[in-house]
Amino acid sequence: MSTMRQYELFELRWNGLDLEGLETSVKIHAVFSCPEQQVHKEVKGFYAGNGEYVVRFLPEKPGRYTWKVTEEVAGCAANERNTACLDGAVEMVGEAVCEAADSGRHGLVRAEGTHFRCADGTWFYPFGTTVYAFSHQEDALVEQTFETLAAAPFNKIRICVFPKHYDYNHNDPEYFAFEKTDGKWDVCRPCYPFWDRLESHIARLDEMGIQCDLILFHPYDCWGFSKLTRKEALTYLDYVVRRLSAYPNIWWSLANEYDLMDYQMEDWYAFSRFLHENDIYGHLLSNHQMVIPWDFSDEATTHICHQTSELDYLSRDIDRFQKPLMVDECRYEGNIPRRWGNISGFELVNRFWIVCMQGGYCTHGETFLNETETLWWSKGGTLAGESPARIGFLRSILEELPGPLTFIGGGMTREEFERVKAIRSGEEGLEGFERLMWSLSWEQAKDFVNSRREMAACCGTDAYLKYYCRNCTSIGKLELPEEGSYDVEVIDVWEMTRTKVLSGVNGTVELRLPGKEGIAIMAVKKG
Amino acid sequence: MSTMRQYELFELRWNGLDLEGLETSVKIHAVFSCPEQQVHKEVKGFYAGNGEYVVRFLPEKPGRYTWKVTEEVAGCAANERNTACLDGAVEMVGEAVCEAADSGRHGLVRAEGTHFRCADGTWFYPFGTTVYAFSHQEDALVEQTFETLAAAPFNKIRICVFPKHYDYNHNDPEYFAFEKTDGKWDVCRPCYPFWDRLESHIARLDEMGIQCDLILFHPYDCWGFSKLTRKEALTYLDYVVRRLSAYPNIWWSLANEYDLMDYQMEDWYAFSRFLHENDIYGHLLSNHQMVIPWDFSDEATTHICHQTSELDYLSRDIDRFQKPLMVDECRYEGNIPRRWGNISGFELVNRFWIVCMQGGYCTHGETFLNETETLWWSKGGTLAGESPARIGFLRSILEELPGPLTFIGGGMTREEFERVKAIRSGEEGLEGFERLMWSLSWEQAKDFVNSRREMAACCGTDAYLKYYCRNCTSIGKLELPEEGSYDVEVIDVWEMTRTKVLSGVNGTVELRLPGKEGIAIMAVKKG
Repeated sequence: MSTMRQYELFELRWNGLDLEGLETSVKIHAVFSCPEQQVHKEVKGFYAGNGEYVVRFLPEKPGRYTWKVTEEVAGCAANERNTACLDGAVEMVGEAVCEAADSGRHGLVRAEGTHFRCADGTWFYPFGTTVYAFSHQEDALVEQTFETLAAAPFNKIRICVFPKHYDYNHNDPEYFAFEKTDGKWDVCRPCYPFWDRLESHIARLDEMGIQCDLILFHPYDCWGFSKLTRKEALTYLDYVVRRLSAYPNIWWSLANEYDLMDYQMEDWYAFSRFLHENDIYGHLLSNHQMVIPWDFSDEATTHICHQTSELDYLSRDIDRFQKPLMVDECRYEGNIPRRWGNISGFELVNRFWIVCMQGGYCTHGETFLNETETLWWSKGGTLAGESPARIGFLRSILEELPGPLTFIGGGMTREEFERVKAIRSGEEGLEGFERLMWSLSWEQAKDFVNSRREMAACCGTDAYLKYYCRNCTSIGKLELPEEGSYDVEVIDVWEMTRTKVLSGVNGTVELRLPGKEGIAIMAVKKG
Repeated sequence: MSTMRQYELFELRWNGLDLEGLETSVKIHAVFSCPEQQVHKEVKGFYAGNGEYVVRFLPEKPGRYTWKVTEEVAGCAANERNTACLDGAVEMVGEAVCEAADSGRHGLVRAEGTHFRCADGTWFYPFGTTVYAFSHQEDALVEQTFETLAAAPFNKIRICVFPKHYDYNHNDPEYFAFEKTDGKWDVCRPCYPFWDRLESHIARLDEMGIQCDLILFHPYDCWGFSKLTRKEALTYLDYVVRRLSAYPNIWWSLANEYDLMDYQMEDWYAFSRFLHENDIYGHLLSNHQMVIPWDFSDEATTHICHQTSELDYLSRDIDRFQKPLMVDECRYEGNIPRRWGNISGFELVNRFWIVCMQGGYCTHGETFLNETETLWWSKGGTLAGESPARIGFLRSILEELPGPLTFIGGGMTREEFERVKAIRSGEEGLEGFERLMWSLSWEQAKDFVNSRREMAACCGTDAYLKYYCRNCTSIGKLELPEEGSYDVEVIDVWEMTRTKVLSGVNGTVELRLPGKEGIAIMAVKKG
């Protein structure tokens, strides 16, 4: 009897006909049942080359499973090159006991309200990094990247399926996702070494506890991968789902800078719908933009994904869509002559704090020049920057808390402003500030009515945080509940220090701050 | 025979009737003529208390002057309190030789195109500071402020006529601008010690080469000065012009945060028009806002004055109004718990550079807490911050150049965008970036089409500067003319270092930069 492990990929692999040219036409279904857990899941298998057939399943509950695999090869399957007439169906059955998860294995991450949570109930706070062309580098460099990741604080990484042709990215990978037919990429002919290798990277990331935010399409292309027809793209996605959806650490990122590509919105909705309907596990799914934010109200889309440097009002997107928010790109720590890749380490850390205080999550990247032009953001290698340690510091602070953060920093939306204005602007005797404020348009007033908005958050009544960004105030203030007893610390987000300054306080507290940038304060309830 | 000095205030003072209650009704006119210089100017005199009458004149050209003073006291002058019947007129004549200006005296600053220039042709680059309640402090503190200014790099200071009631400002001054009648401020009864003292400050600033940007109205008021009727306000302004317009270093700032006051726009236009018509010298004039920028197209308004932290597109205001631009408030270096008063020294210096590269000019202030709550921005004293030295460094760099800066950093306005879009969006075969860009609205596209806009400036072909703000690029690039021979230096705006890295170059040059924030590069033509 086989063994399964909860939250770990389970694979059936057997030999059969060599299907060259017809690989993606293969019809393999499997049903996995665990009646004691009310599990009855149907998955699709795939052809893995060299006459190998594979079915993968991710068990999310322990117990006794049985399965039945059906391979339908009715009639002729044909493409332009080949016709194979294979008759009949193959069935296989089996069973396995799925043991409870290893400690350290928490299962698939999904959206729960406006945050992320693992299948076993553990909260998941993504601290992402970016290595777009991770899998397209030589083994030695990939190995070095893994070593770097092992010592880094990132639990999510954005990587691309397709290779990248862009600034600092001019190397062809060894393998591409497909073979060519008549000089053109043939999505019906996956390149099996490519997929084996990609999977090995995904699996290893999973072992390291790192989520793989897999970018399915992108425009940085000189080979033709950005020019697949919708039909070709869906064939590709079908193969991707069959091969990869049983990896627990997969997130689907439809694209990087989707709006730069030639697909229409209908195409993107077709892609997200396809994944939604065919990925039985419901992996996280979103889309990254250059200019036009993706449609986060899309039912298949599980979280908000932004590329932005405008971080002050992200909480409103969370309120609006009621989904978790990832700022998956907010410029990179680095020194390249590109605006998107030369912010300071402090600035990136500043941005992480601003995003996290609003209840969102952020992604890092770095772009430092070196002799080999191996920039982390695309190729990996080693980390030259100073932000990772500080990102780890922030992560450790958040992971100490009982749960995720809720933004409490205030401010006024347009709707709120218009509502108050409608009531107040007719008032008699308004003077000075009041008279001015309710006479303004939203465009005129919006910054000012939000001038007291703060980067402040709470975790229930257990903890209160406030981050002062680049404000160098020497006086901090928290409005704690009147009940309870709190310890208050001053946090230097860059120096990575935590200094307790008050003990056993509640209500409104004021405290001295160092009068420098990058200071946060945190109150934690005692006992 | 009296002596005048070019660009220095000349005063006639004589004794006469004590006019208590009718002071501002006095009609004194003087005509100053210097035929060899085609000068024929009419000024109004004023009553200075204690039976003293004064006429002031600022000669702007050397030569032989004659004057005639006429004091008309026809009929009865009356107010609610008093009626004085004084008949007849008094005339006085005189002459003086006006000697050429002392070296170091450059005359009144006026707008020339989009920059500032002294009467003698010297360019004037304002580097302002802010001490709003300067004149309302005790003598010892005022003295300390003068000492601080003597060692500081500021050549302009914003001060208020009226005292300030605000955060950290709760002290009554010794003198107020007017006396009270029946418990109410009486603008017809100036308080002469107040004006004598204020003038002594203005005169001393002038000796130090510091422009006095005099704020005529402001809303931070608990005494009633912000509640003058328009008529009262004009009486006040009339006295101000008579007393102060002959000081060469005066700038008129109609208000601080004018939009917070209860005056209507018609009132503000009446004030600016009054000054325009009655100030024969044409001192610089503008107005400072909280939210709604003043109307810089107003004919009487000589330059743009902004309170803003949005500095990226100031060059467009200069283009639009074709007037010089002062950012007279962009937050203060400090540590108070107020967003407007706790930016870092580096951030303020960063803002100065951003403004100056666009051909504008900037004003400093600092707000550090101390035991006596003597904050520079309101009361003066000493400077605790680190930005002044760096501001002085910037000033020294600009003053070495042959003339003021012209912005050449590029970018695209809304009009330009719409124009290009109208042409290009119908094009066949647009792909990727091009297809996206011309399909967007201005709101969507505006940041992106300006993503290559730089803080770059030139001084003719004599000098080229580029400031990298918080971009930590390790490669800098200048596009110099193909002709000529330039030396290029790397400037660290915070460390205040200048390092020549290239000599005798032209055309497109690339150079290594330190990969940190606050770096500028400057190319200067040799010979």
